[in-house]
Amino acid sequence: MTELDLPDTTSELDEDDRLKPEFVRAVCEAVDRGDDEAARELVEPLHPADLADLFELVPGEQRAALAAAIAERLNGDVLAEMNDWVRDAVIEALTATQVADLAAQLDTDDAVAIIEDLDDAEQRAVLRALDPDDRAAIEEALSYPEESAGRLMQRELVAVPEHWTVGDALDYLRADDVLTTDFWEIFVVDPAHKPVGTCQLSWILRTPRSVAIGDVMAREQTLIPVDMDQEEVALRFQKYALISAAVVDGGGRLVGMITVDDVVHIIQAEAGEDALLLSGAGEGDINEPIRDSYKARVRWLITNLITALLPATIIGAFGATIDKMVTLAALMPIVAGLGGNAGTQTMAVTVRALATNQLTQSNTVRAIRREMIIALMNGATVAALIGTGVTLWFGNPQLGAVIGSAMLLNVVIAGFAGVFVPLTLDRFNADPAVASSIFVTMTTDSMGFLVFLGLATVSGLTG
Amino acid sequence: MTELDLPDTTSELDEDDRLKPEFVRAVCEAVDRGDDEAARELVEPLHPADLADLFELVPGEQRAALAAAIAERLNGDVLAEMNDWVRDAVIEALTATQVADLAAQLDTDDAVAIIEDLDDAEQRAVLRALDPDDRAAIEEALSYPEESAGRLMQRELVAVPEHWTVGDALDYLRADDVLTTDFWEIFVVDPAHKPVGTCQLSWILRTPRSVAIGDVMAREQTLIPVDMDQEEVALRFQKYALISAAVVDGGGRLVGMITVDDVVHIIQAEAGEDALLLSGAGEGDINEPIRDSYKARVRWLITNLITALLPATIIGAFGATIDKMVTLAALMPIVAGLGGNAGTQTMAVTVRALATNQLTQSNTVRAIRREMIIALMNGATVAALIGTGVTLWFGNPQLGAVIGSAMLLNVVIAGFAGVFVPLTLDRFNADPAVASSIFVTMTTDSMGFLVFLGLATVSGLTG
Repeated sequence: MTELDLPDTTSELDEDDRLKPEFVRAVCEAVDRGDDEAARELVEPLHPADLADLFELVPGEQRAALAAAIAERLNGDVLAEMNDWVRDAVIEALTATQVADLAAQLDTDDAVAIIEDLDDAEQRAVLRALDPDDRAAIEEALSYPEESAGRLMQRELVAVPEHWTVGDALDYLRADDVLTTDFWEIFVVDPAHKPVGTCQLSWILRTPRSVAIGDVMAREQTLIPVDMDQEEVALRFQKYALISAAVVDGGGRLVGMITVDDVVHIIQAEAGEDALLLSGAGEGDINEPIRDSYKARVRWLITNLITALLPATIIGAFGATIDKMVTLAALMPIVAGLGGNAGTQTMAVTVRALATNQLTQSNTVRAIRREMIIALMNGATVAALIGTGVTLWFGNPQLGAVIGSAMLLNVVIAGFAGVFVPLTLDRFNADPAVASSIFVTMTTDSMGFLVFLGLATVSGLTG
Repeated sequence: MTELDLPDTTSELDEDDRLKPEFVRAVCEAVDRGDDEAARELVEPLHPADLADLFELVPGEQRAALAAAIAERLNGDVLAEMNDWVRDAVIEALTATQVADLAAQLDTDDAVAIIEDLDDAEQRAVLRALDPDDRAAIEEALSYPEESAGRLMQRELVAVPEHWTVGDALDYLRADDVLTTDFWEIFVVDPAHKPVGTCQLSWILRTPRSVAIGDVMAREQTLIPVDMDQEEVALRFQKYALISAAVVDGGGRLVGMITVDDVVHIIQAEAGEDALLLSGAGEGDINEPIRDSYKARVRWLITNLITALLPATIIGAFGATIDKMVTLAALMPIVAGLGGNAGTQTMAVTVRALATNQLTQSNTVRAIRREMIIALMNGATVAALIGTGVTLWFGNPQLGAVIGSAMLLNVVIAGFAGVFVPLTLDRFNADPAVASSIFVTMTTDSMGFLVFLGLATVSGLTG
């Protein structure tokens, strides 16, 4: 199976489109020995997205030198594709005028992405270096909340009045040269600049010149309010399979356009962050400065340390029981641990279903019932296994019965916590991915120890 | 902030684009009392994607009745948007001819998505009911491996020869009425039908008729081999911000087109599955039959049960130590648990970085060093807290020193396991999200107990 990418990049990329380590090393060596010419030659065939990857893959201390060596290739497209943390580092090595030149090449959304992370002084310097039109557009975008549609949209779009014909639109598109060249749909607006319809370019291409735009366009269109959160924007693009969408202000007027290529990153990031949030790793980006990673993670660990006091206290209360039968100390983490695993499974499923809008008020009761049935089945299976195993191993059927019963109970409790905790957090408008696992683990640990040691005590096992 | 979606769906959808529970209930009630007319009226304003959601939200036993009631709205678009499990249930209620009629309305990729999950007998029945052209196209698509580009692509596309002018292309597009109407780019092919370039529709619209297509198209294009895995396809669309891409066969000939709207679902699903895989919840879909969920999850729990024997054995070996100081039994889960949390954080970050191609051979060493530094910082912080706390609480500085040292060691071990395990699995071409957490948890549990109880024993803490 040959691949016909032009130019041929088989010497730079592996079969998964990742830059080869040999290639990255060769570029690093060229930059190290000051051979900028060789570095430029090496990166020549790279796509902007691959160039951005290159900056991520070279060691942090070499990024500024690389940027200087291949300055002519370091355009706005490369910066727009770069990981946020790496971009910040590269931009810090540039002057405000250089950053402004780069930003000026971009559509508003990409320019904003570059400028919004700068600190205030740098931001002002870059804005001053921009020409007045670009500056006004970017300042307006920055006036919208972070992670809102207003930051994500580009102001470069094509809007035409409804009374035009297809021919009028074609002539307009051929004549006007200040428009953006990359667009997939045109928007049809009324005299107040409110969108009344959307027209795919393919429809225009397939329609005779004399037909009115109003007869070609789709009137059913999905409009994005300018202050909508980007996660909602991403869900809406995905749900309705949108390629681009009109952004409207509070008065319903067309102020911008969001295209799917800008949303794909968000869909990917939002879907992927669940695993990171559930683990308490914060943004969890490998390019994040160590100090920030430390802060995010240690906060989580300290919270877990505090919640771990509850199960420890429960064990402490059963000191006399353990003292009589130290085997209990060896077996109790199994009950707590399996409960933790079962709870995490249910929690992951629930968090995912909530994030994708699959789980709503309409099917909450059904979802809880479903999880409880699975928990009962899982609990019964694992309880039978551990109960039988412990009975045979220790030759103690009573101990087997105690651990089996404790296991069944704890897995069922875990299933309930795993679906109840995220649902409750969601009901109170908290992100269920952020805090669920703290509560679920605390529950499964505490109940695991309590049920197992409690049953051992009341059943007279150690008696 | 008003939204101008037409038709107005504010009585059906909440502010997050989810169907309102009142609305779902109203439809269910109409179907229940056999008032199909009322049900049809209720669903009339719904977008196909919302209709698909409706099927997911009504109880399983009502889906067939709903399908019968609103049969005229149950078209291919609705089925294409439906969750796999729900679609299977709805399709089972239809005849082969009905399914074939629905499939015939769709582009190949969507038709294949509906047909590929049927069992062999049903599949043959549906294929027989299709007209020969559609059948041939779908049979060829089914001949490609599951989850490959060949299944994902549509065969409906626009390809033109390089020597044509823009005017030729425009005339062709206007004249030919068997073409698909939804496309965003046209492909330029040589006489052997190999792609030589891609042309955005906006470029054609903005270029005079007399210019040759060869002068407008981009020669640098991303081609997708027909047997490429859909996850790779998704990463490539994302990396290069593609709207559509040409699919080529082994001989480099153009055989299909993949558009971004078909890839968005995959990007979302692949990114979101990490959290589910890490938790051992399998596909983790709330619409999955309970039997399948049970099988996937209980396998994981049994594996965890087996690995839990190692830490239990370690505790058992320290029976004499615990017997002398039962407080150790209460404190030991804290050391193991915090290690588990720290390991999970590192693991989640590593798995994510691997999945997004951010972590490659070029920066592996750097990533490990980074995680070890963070682990040391986290370990030192948590160790200081627990060491001080235990010293004060139990008035026993030696116990404080033992638990502090054990905590530091275990968090560092956890950090190492969290980055080493997924990297190793990835190196051996295993999915790091699937098995990492089993190994990491086993390590942090075992080492937590071993280090804590071991230090307590050798330090002479228990006399």
